[in-house]
Amino acid sequence: MNPTLLQKIDGPADLRGLSRLELKQLSAELREFLLQSVSQTGGHLSSNLGTVELTIALHHVFNTPQDRIVWDVGHQTYPHKILTGRRDRMSTLRQLGGLSGFPRRDESEYDTFGTAHSSTSISAALGMAVAAKMKGEDRRSIAVIGDGAMTAGMAFEALNNAGVAGANMIVVLNDNDMSISPPVGALNRYFARLMSGKFYATARDTAKNVLKNAPPLFELARRLEEHAKGMVVPCTIFEEFGFTYFGPIDGHDLDSLVPTLENLRGMKGPLFLHVVTKKGYGYKLAEADPIAYHGPGKFNPAEGLKKPSGVPKTTFTQVFGQWLCDMAAADERLVGITPAMREGSGMVEFEQRFPKRYHDVGIAEQHAVTFAGGLACEGMKPVVAIYSTFLQRAYDQLVHDVAIQNLPVVFALDRAGLVGADGATHAGNYDIAFLRCIPNVSVLTPADERECRQLLSTAYAQNHPVAVRYPRGAGVGVVPGDGLETLPWGKGEVRRRGERVAILAFGTLLYPALEAAEKLGATVANMRYAKPLDAALVAELARTHDALVTVEDGCVMGGAGSAVLEALQAAGLNVPVLVLGLPDQFIEHGDPVKLMSLNGLDAAGIEASVIKRFGAKPALLRPAANH
Amino acid sequence: MNPTLLQKIDGPADLRGLSRLELKQLSAELREFLLQSVSQTGGHLSSNLGTVELTIALHHVFNTPQDRIVWDVGHQTYPHKILTGRRDRMSTLRQLGGLSGFPRRDESEYDTFGTAHSSTSISAALGMAVAAKMKGEDRRSIAVIGDGAMTAGMAFEALNNAGVAGANMIVVLNDNDMSISPPVGALNRYFARLMSGKFYATARDTAKNVLKNAPPLFELARRLEEHAKGMVVPCTIFEEFGFTYFGPIDGHDLDSLVPTLENLRGMKGPLFLHVVTKKGYGYKLAEADPIAYHGPGKFNPAEGLKKPSGVPKTTFTQVFGQWLCDMAAADERLVGITPAMREGSGMVEFEQRFPKRYHDVGIAEQHAVTFAGGLACEGMKPVVAIYSTFLQRAYDQLVHDVAIQNLPVVFALDRAGLVGADGATHAGNYDIAFLRCIPNVSVLTPADERECRQLLSTAYAQNHPVAVRYPRGAGVGVVPGDGLETLPWGKGEVRRRGERVAILAFGTLLYPALEAAEKLGATVANMRYAKPLDAALVAELARTHDALVTVEDGCVMGGAGSAVLEALQAAGLNVPVLVLGLPDQFIEHGDPVKLMSLNGLDAAGIEASVIKRFGAKPALLRPAANH
Repeated sequence: MNPTLLQKIDGPADLRGLSRLELKQLSAELREFLLQSVSQTGGHLSSNLGTVELTIALHHVFNTPQDRIVWDVGHQTYPHKILTGRRDRMSTLRQLGGLSGFPRRDESEYDTFGTAHSSTSISAALGMAVAAKMKGEDRRSIAVIGDGAMTAGMAFEALNNAGVAGANMIVVLNDNDMSISPPVGALNRYFARLMSGKFYATARDTAKNVLKNAPPLFELARRLEEHAKGMVVPCTIFEEFGFTYFGPIDGHDLDSLVPTLENLRGMKGPLFLHVVTKKGYGYKLAEADPIAYHGPGKFNPAEGLKKPSGVPKTTFTQVFGQWLCDMAAADERLVGITPAMREGSGMVEFEQRFPKRYHDVGIAEQHAVTFAGGLACEGMKPVVAIYSTFLQRAYDQLVHDVAIQNLPVVFALDRAGLVGADGATHAGNYDIAFLRCIPNVSVLTPADERECRQLLSTAYAQNHPVAVRYPRGAGVGVVPGDGLETLPWGKGEVRRRGERVAILAFGTLLYPALEAAEKLGATVANMRYAKPLDAALVAELARTHDALVTVEDGCVMGGAGSAVLEALQAAGLNVPVLVLGLPDQFIEHGDPVKLMSLNGLDAAGIEASVIKRFGAKPALLRPAANH
Repeated sequence: MNPTLLQKIDGPADLRGLSRLELKQLSAELREFLLQSVSQTGGHLSSNLGTVELTIALHHVFNTPQDRIVWDVGHQTYPHKILTGRRDRMSTLRQLGGLSGFPRRDESEYDTFGTAHSSTSISAALGMAVAAKMKGEDRRSIAVIGDGAMTAGMAFEALNNAGVAGANMIVVLNDNDMSISPPVGALNRYFARLMSGKFYATARDTAKNVLKNAPPLFELARRLEEHAKGMVVPCTIFEEFGFTYFGPIDGHDLDSLVPTLENLRGMKGPLFLHVVTKKGYGYKLAEADPIAYHGPGKFNPAEGLKKPSGVPKTTFTQVFGQWLCDMAAADERLVGITPAMREGSGMVEFEQRFPKRYHDVGIAEQHAVTFAGGLACEGMKPVVAIYSTFLQRAYDQLVHDVAIQNLPVVFALDRAGLVGADGATHAGNYDIAFLRCIPNVSVLTPADERECRQLLSTAYAQNHPVAVRYPRGAGVGVVPGDGLETLPWGKGEVRRRGERVAILAFGTLLYPALEAAEKLGATVANMRYAKPLDAALVAELARTHDALVTVEDGCVMGGAGSAVLEALQAAGLNVPVLVLGLPDQFIEHGDPVKLMSLNGLDAAGIEASVIKRFGAKPALLRPAANH
């Protein structure tokens, strides 16, 4: 296919003169470009294939960037990026220095609001709509939000406010019957009822016939008038919230989308358009398995995803998933909870084997944590599997519902530290700092796969809240084993005896620290616990060395290194300490290995930092004693 | 009145044998006791007067504590406490060592879940219901939640999950048309429609007639059957969520409450009972002004609240409120946002003077922050007024929507540090730690009223997110002034030149620190900024003193003291540092002055800690030099 049309689109203005037929051709070209592009870079696929027509229609109908589109989550914005002048940079997607996989305000004026976590779009778009009203500017604010994202509480908070704020905004529900995992909860059933019942048929007819052929404004006006008179009983929850509801309409049919959006463009107040799309639309393999094609790596579009050749390294996610099954088999009190991340958190097997003890609560981190608290009150042993970055959504629930009551909930924090291609929005850099300040909460930092399993068992054996944090991807490859043994509580271990300098490593940076220590002749301790800190070990190392170095894959501000500083001062020990970790800035997307190197957290970086701070290699200055 | 019945009630079992007539007498006695009790201790009044009959009916009908009642927010649990064996301890309410003002698991087996922040009850009760199902235990889980609390997203997250979890639970909506401030948002309008329309009339008849006289189960079974057949179109949003809806019924009418609850007791699945009550019911003064009687101090019930004699000290809340009005008058871009805390945050005058720039978004902290982000994107200057403890609810929004995008949002954090009578659930101890680890975010800690105003202006002048934290109540009494001048960014100041020891004070503890320094002959710096820390001042003080002491009314783990330790190590400065602040434990309710003293954070405590750590008074060891 020769993408003649797409090549001429350098911005939405180029879309606006196109005929309906040309828009349809553009859809086909854009979908093909997308498939070729993502199959070469990796990234989100299913969600983007599903929003091709909707994106074209929105930019065709609305006067972007003067009109504001806020894309919820933002992993469906590749068509948007391609149509807004970034087509040629799609090959750099999610790579260091390249395009972000999400909308970013500093990337384009068309990216009105940075998103990546779900369910923020209605709040942000309402803020923009209220601002327009205050400034007397005539423009539209449009939030495009998926059905999965609608389950998060903040979307409802925003609907509740938007219904009375009197601002002109449009919420487009992109209903693809999917979050990343299959949808759950009552709201999803409700959407299904809206789609399947006569309501859908009627509405579809309205969209297809009324809006296409009859004078559509008349029909809309009639509906509104009936609404105002109370003759039409509100029949969707969105109308209960004060929105005028339209739909559902077919989100892949430009003949429905364009005239409907054109009509909405002229209307005032809070409007709600229900659009039905299919994730992976137009690529049969992705339609058949949208989960697998949610965020694939590189692949050949003609062949589809292939099983990786050879035995891939076990990821920490898999270590957790296996441990969860094994512990569940050993203890019937265990309950596993995920906020809509069954695959990402490694809980597929657990759901299959223990369906009654598996709870996918939807994109609802707040509820997930307090629900776990309720279970723990009754003697259950809840394990909340949650990405470090998403635990931020449930911070108050962790403090108020779990920590204050000192309830035994295990938090399995995946994606701790830098996450690579997803970038700053998904970074799990802050968990040690924001968790260790909360009384009763412990924070465990396993160094490798085996220790991850052991510390999960250790956490599970406690009678208070414990978080175990582990990074994305694989570790050094230590076989996790199949036991359920625990490690001594609150105790680190010395892994290498050296002299003068002792490196205190938290988490997987133990291994580059060990490598650096070989060159430096330094001692290395595997601290294991950011809280409770092994203060005795810290004191012993401080007394027997000239300097300490702390290493962690978390923020230096308030992190584990700070905990060491606090412990030293509390013990009245004065020793120079070099705190290594992630700096006080948001770190861009890119290859995680490269990013760690850029931040001086690989072996060479650690070695260089130690030398820079404490002078020439200490081991060279004074011969090593015999240990 | 001689409370003959109430005196015999030592627990809910004593309620169960009472006749309907006796229950009504008990209501009257309980209401009178409550009024006498709260007027002597201070505490929440309106909410408790409103739940007298509901509490009696719940404990009468359900088999507590075997059946679990979770009271949302929990400030309406005084009747519950009185009826569950704590009548004689009500005189100790909210005092050190006395009863908590909220339910607490360690206070009574009838307090099944500790609450205080709103909207957690459905999640917790669902957890309990699921646990009962897993354990095969036949009991009910009941969440009692107000209409204000229903606006928070997590309540919706829980409804969405409960509708499909298949557990037996009852949500009792205590609809009193009030949160602390008047209700806002579309949901409230919806409740009003439910109550005022024919629906209410019909339902009331149902409750009064059908449930009282006819075989009620027959009527309920008929409804359920129709529901199952799809003959009855779901007509409330709660039915859309999978709940069976009952109500609204009169929550002060035991003849409605008792039989309705008796019927619900025998039913399965998720049930939703809409109960209408009046805040302050039975005490005319509170009915007329439920906001004033929401949380009064001591008063004479016969006379009601009186204007305090003399001129009360200006609170930090008032300083903020006045600044907000003055800045709004000077800058039309300013927008003020509160999550349902108009009175508590000092925004009454602002709303009156600038109604179009005032946004009460409901109990919806998450939305409040992201809404502010949307406004900031469009050039507005949003000020989010929020208690420190409630900002925990919007932590991810602060990180993901504001900080990553580096948007200029001012967070006015009231109730920072210990809050006194409300206790651990409301403590604002963690904000310095959980905020300073986030890049781009600044944290300002004014020492007194004048500096609070100055630092608010300073924060407002920045082009990035800034939090200004200030405590509950009044400061030392420095006149705030009426200017809008700013202070130098990121700079502390030396307030007293002494020697050997330098005390670095963050926030209002500057004043006890100055007092202690008089005795110690120490230097005192008013640091003003927890972030960006004045590292130059820290270094200078470290170089010119033998030891440093940091003082803050926040947690020592990861707090401002840790920031000082980090800065010293980053500068390669080795000096002993004593970090004073709140310990790593949840601190009980009680008089804040006493609590600060118990935690060694008054002048005497600071002095004693310095002497304990650094030996006898340094000033005595070496004569002071002439400055």
